[in-house]
Amino acid sequence: MTFAIGYLGPQGTYSEQAAEAYRQQLHGQGDTELKPYPSILQVIQATADCSIDFAVVPVENSIEGGVTVTLDALWQLPNLRIQHALIVPISHALLTKASSLSSLEHIYSHPQALGQCQQWIKNNCPNADLIPTRSTTEVLGDLQKTTNTAAIASEWAAHLYDLPVIAHPINDSPDNFTRFWVLGTQDSQQGDFTSLAFSLPVNAPGALLTPLQIMSRASINLSRIESRPTKRSLGEYLFFLDLEASLSEAKVQQSLQALQSCTETLRIFGSYDASTHAYNLSKHG
Amino acid sequence: MTFAIGYLGPQGTYSEQAAEAYRQQLHGQGDTELKPYPSILQVIQATADCSIDFAVVPVENSIEGGVTVTLDALWQLPNLRIQHALIVPISHALLTKASSLSSLEHIYSHPQALGQCQQWIKNNCPNADLIPTRSTTEVLGDLQKTTNTAAIASEWAAHLYDLPVIAHPINDSPDNFTRFWVLGTQDSQQGDFTSLAFSLPVNAPGALLTPLQIMSRASINLSRIESRPTKRSLGEYLFFLDLEASLSEAKVQQSLQALQSCTETLRIFGSYDASTHAYNLSKHG
Repeated sequence: MTFAIGYLGPQGTYSEQAAEAYRQQLHGQGDTELKPYPSILQVIQATADCSIDFAVVPVENSIEGGVTVTLDALWQLPNLRIQHALIVPISHALLTKASSLSSLEHIYSHPQALGQCQQWIKNNCPNADLIPTRSTTEVLGDLQKTTNTAAIASEWAAHLYDLPVIAHPINDSPDNFTRFWVLGTQDSQQGDFTSLAFSLPVNAPGALLTPLQIMSRASINLSRIESRPTKRSLGEYLFFLDLEASLSEAKVQQSLQALQSCTETLRIFGSYDASTHAYNLSKHG
Repeated sequence: MTFAIGYLGPQGTYSEQAAEAYRQQLHGQGDTELKPYPSILQVIQATADCSIDFAVVPVENSIEGGVTVTLDALWQLPNLRIQHALIVPISHALLTKASSLSSLEHIYSHPQALGQCQQWIKNNCPNADLIPTRSTTEVLGDLQKTTNTAAIASEWAAHLYDLPVIAHPINDSPDNFTRFWVLGTQDSQQGDFTSLAFSLPVNAPGALLTPLQIMSRASINLSRIESRPTKRSLGEYLFFLDLEASLSEAKVQQSLQALQSCTETLRIFGSYDASTHAYNLSKHG
């Protein structure tokens, strides 16, 4: 049995670090293969189509917030369940063949990485032009040729693409973490966390009060609430909730029954465990 | 008296349409001047620094959701208040010198516009490479020279840059609206809507229950709730609330007093009115 695990590529992204961590968790259950995709949406769709077994996709960063494409795709693809959560520390480096920061005219990276380093860039490369890319590693293959261009990516990516690191870490906040979900089509009832989402029959966020009261009365802690537009009309929202409880608990089952009666559409994404992974360059160096 | 109104440029963006609509509302109060900026953050900072009088910035789109840079900047810059809200219909066109859709190899636009047209692109230009830009109009000046490249922008932008429209509308959802806020430093207590944000003393989204109960007991309708990370640590959030009520009402003042005692930091962004603007190309043609 070979498990195919998809992630946002090309090689060297933080998503690949998370996928690699999940691959290690599957050790002993079968062979594993990591497959890069050009977008988060394509990774998720490949999993929903059963072209691959798992999608390892970012859901939330501690600085930039929710990854909306992941939430929206999970809502729209009813056969997907969350198998696991991975928390990965994000530590950005500036990769360049330039000899000094002052010679940098262009800095490329994913918009979230550019956002997470904006103060550092303002202080150290105030004149550099910031150019968004589809992943932190998209342009790394082209960086060997220039001496006025840099990219923001991980130290691991610098190692993979054989590029010098001129500064590290450059994140504005040292407490920078991304939470990834492993999505698959297997039903998952066990685990410390449960995620769900719902739309409301009354199109007013005030109607969120009743679902929150149901959780509060059952002593279920919420670790996250995020709203997304229904895409039907301005001012109509879905709400994504993460519960610190398992579907295997009676209080959760009872609360979900009560939620059924006060929501319009209720989607339950399963229960799962979470683990934290510090990437260790020396292990791969 | 000349009012300087900043927006995300270059010329031809939806932000400029919103800024133009606000300029018309100021008619008779003084001269007005529209100033393009290269990023939303720079527009907002220029307003907080009093370099300009108003920032007209997007806060929420009915498909793509909240504009996080706007929410985060408003939280961080304590002298800013919301002066007005503008709702602008978004109708995307495909601008190109190419003679057919099949010859298109690259499509440029702001990530939100690319996201809003993704199904249309998949069906009509499945092989085109999608390239993110900082605004819908950033590359329009370069589009005259190529016949394999297109950009997604408004019909107004096509008119301004003298570019042919090969397809319109191309939004996946016809109900596509963006809400803009006009930010300034004047105190604003009057208007049908009030916006605020808070962090919670207990770092758990379940603690949101008490603020919602306060609003519900005072019969204040909420039109929006959005969470953002505090940027201190993963799992800590701020909540942005829009109320359908005015700071000039006693029930709002009483609720805000009660909110003070159950929140950690409470920021009140003022009361304001909202208006809807359909852009009329013929008026400017």
